[in-house]
Amino acid sequence: MNCDHIGWTEEGHFRYLDQTRLPQEEKFCEARTVEDVIEAMQTLRVRGAPLIGISAAMGLTSAARTLADGAFTRDWFEGAVDRIGAARPTAINLHWALERMRDAYESAARAGGDGAALIAALHQEAQNIWDEDAAMCLAIGEAGARLIPDGATVMTHCNAGALATGGIGTALAPVYELHKQKRRVQVISNETRPLRQGSRLTAWELAKAGIPVTSIVDGAAGAMMAQGKVDLVITGADRIAANGDTANKIGTYGVAVLARAHGIPFYVAAPCSTFDLAVTSGETIPIELRSPEEIDAAPGAVGYNPAFDVTPAEYIAALITDRGIIEPPYTERISQLIPKGASSSG
Amino acid sequence: MNCDHIGWTEEGHFRYLDQTRLPQEEKFCEARTVEDVIEAMQTLRVRGAPLIGISAAMGLTSAARTLADGAFTRDWFEGAVDRIGAARPTAINLHWALERMRDAYESAARAGGDGAALIAALHQEAQNIWDEDAAMCLAIGEAGARLIPDGATVMTHCNAGALATGGIGTALAPVYELHKQKRRVQVISNETRPLRQGSRLTAWELAKAGIPVTSIVDGAAGAMMAQGKVDLVITGADRIAANGDTANKIGTYGVAVLARAHGIPFYVAAPCSTFDLAVTSGETIPIELRSPEEIDAAPGAVGYNPAFDVTPAEYIAALITDRGIIEPPYTERISQLIPKGASSSG
Repeated sequence: MNCDHIGWTEEGHFRYLDQTRLPQEEKFCEARTVEDVIEAMQTLRVRGAPLIGISAAMGLTSAARTLADGAFTRDWFEGAVDRIGAARPTAINLHWALERMRDAYESAARAGGDGAALIAALHQEAQNIWDEDAAMCLAIGEAGARLIPDGATVMTHCNAGALATGGIGTALAPVYELHKQKRRVQVISNETRPLRQGSRLTAWELAKAGIPVTSIVDGAAGAMMAQGKVDLVITGADRIAANGDTANKIGTYGVAVLARAHGIPFYVAAPCSTFDLAVTSGETIPIELRSPEEIDAAPGAVGYNPAFDVTPAEYIAALITDRGIIEPPYTERISQLIPKGASSSG
Repeated sequence: MNCDHIGWTEEGHFRYLDQTRLPQEEKFCEARTVEDVIEAMQTLRVRGAPLIGISAAMGLTSAARTLADGAFTRDWFEGAVDRIGAARPTAINLHWALERMRDAYESAARAGGDGAALIAALHQEAQNIWDEDAAMCLAIGEAGARLIPDGATVMTHCNAGALATGGIGTALAPVYELHKQKRRVQVISNETRPLRQGSRLTAWELAKAGIPVTSIVDGAAGAMMAQGKVDLVITGADRIAANGDTANKIGTYGVAVLARAHGIPFYVAAPCSTFDLAVTSGETIPIELRSPEEIDAAPGAVGYNPAFDVTPAEYIAALITDRGIIEPPYTERISQLIPKGASSSG
């Protein structure tokens, strides 16, 4: 699958595929204001940790471009960065991307650039973030493909595919790489309630690419493993702590525990921007609680709807990154491979 | 909750609450023919292993009553039993109940009864099955209540409540018993995709009874356990093998594996009619595959939709039955406690 789900309009605004409408409809939207960007993120029209970072950068550029002459002040910029940065709490890539945008702004401002020059600098940095993400996806694909035996069945949870990134995905990148090499590979896509990103997005993009994909409900993951139908699991990540503990979509932890019980390797694929070296363990990763309405509980029942869970590092066979495979012991090897600067708060 | 979701009409036909409409609507239907009974079961308007048995018995009586004079032959009866018995493959209670109905028919036929006498015998046996199920639920409730500490939070999967039985349920019976004793207890109800019996039925009936209930998606079970929010798990069963292996709604196995990983006791509650001593282990329990349409996969993806999975006995801390608690070693203790005659094929 090509990354045609995000782009710039002719006027230089951020244009994106509304992922809440998939697979029924391929509808594109434009984000022209800070409010548009925040709404697109909070309603999950754009989602996936890497794409959240890219969307923040492109959306911020778009919003600056929309301002009337003279309104693009430093105060506006700082406020916009803060507001977009607060849109979603768990994905660290959001803060990482905004930090890069702030650096780009400061460099251009120090060089004495006017409004147009500042906007050009923001546009360029957003494009860099996107391009680098696409390159990181390719590198993850190449590293991860070596872990997948010929003809293997890969289980994944949620969508960490092309739609979640600016390239060929993270968890699905090794699958796309194998498919490109004309090697046999197939995917079991867990539905991923409440918002069904597995059935709606992962299954959709893999089927579109001609890769065999089977959709199951989340509760069927254990039965599939018990029947010997799963060779390995790969998921994405929203934030990886310095010790390897990984926050990802709710349900990931359960899949990891099941994989352990069946002796099936469980991998996490993510670019460097997903590591947060300032967070020593998963216990302190902030977990977004979303509206109970998403889970449609019966009247009189309380709905509890955490969007993410934390998989302790001990359940993870290896981390597949754009800098190669990281195996345990994680704390030592993550600090060797991931430069402090790769993470916003590191 | 009172068992007012099934009953006889004034004309002696089987009347039931359509569980597919809950919680939006409380709509009652009548089953007057064999086809009506089969359709009610296959579309899950009536569901839950004990209720499937009761519905088969009441529905068979209803269908016999609908026949024109002279049409209620032995051939018709045998055909009706076979057809209803084939409606769903996994719940052994279905076969157990139909076997009892066949015995009742034979007794009445041997006594020289006419059509009206045969129907009266069927009606009485169906009522007996219902009454006995209600009594078994109470016994399960009393036995199970002793396993639940004061103020505990019980996680359950799918619906093994009043709606699944002719009484106060199986997995939920201990909860209702504690509530009756005015002791504090609360429930976490897993959604149970694809048909959401947890969120639609378990949460609905508990909220109606005034018992605190929290709805979560299936994928959140692990996070709840990791956060220390679950004290024990109780589920129902569709069939229990002679060694204690238990078939229950898809996703049950994953919950059991998670419970083990967190040191949380996992119990299965079921009446004697759920044991199938002819099946030595879970490997040979037939698992119903339902339509992929229920899981709404994206175009191009294959949907795989097993309705049940098997939890190996080693994951089960105890079986809560109407004859008391059965602890490991199961093979020996099940054979002591469950008479061979309690199971149709045993």
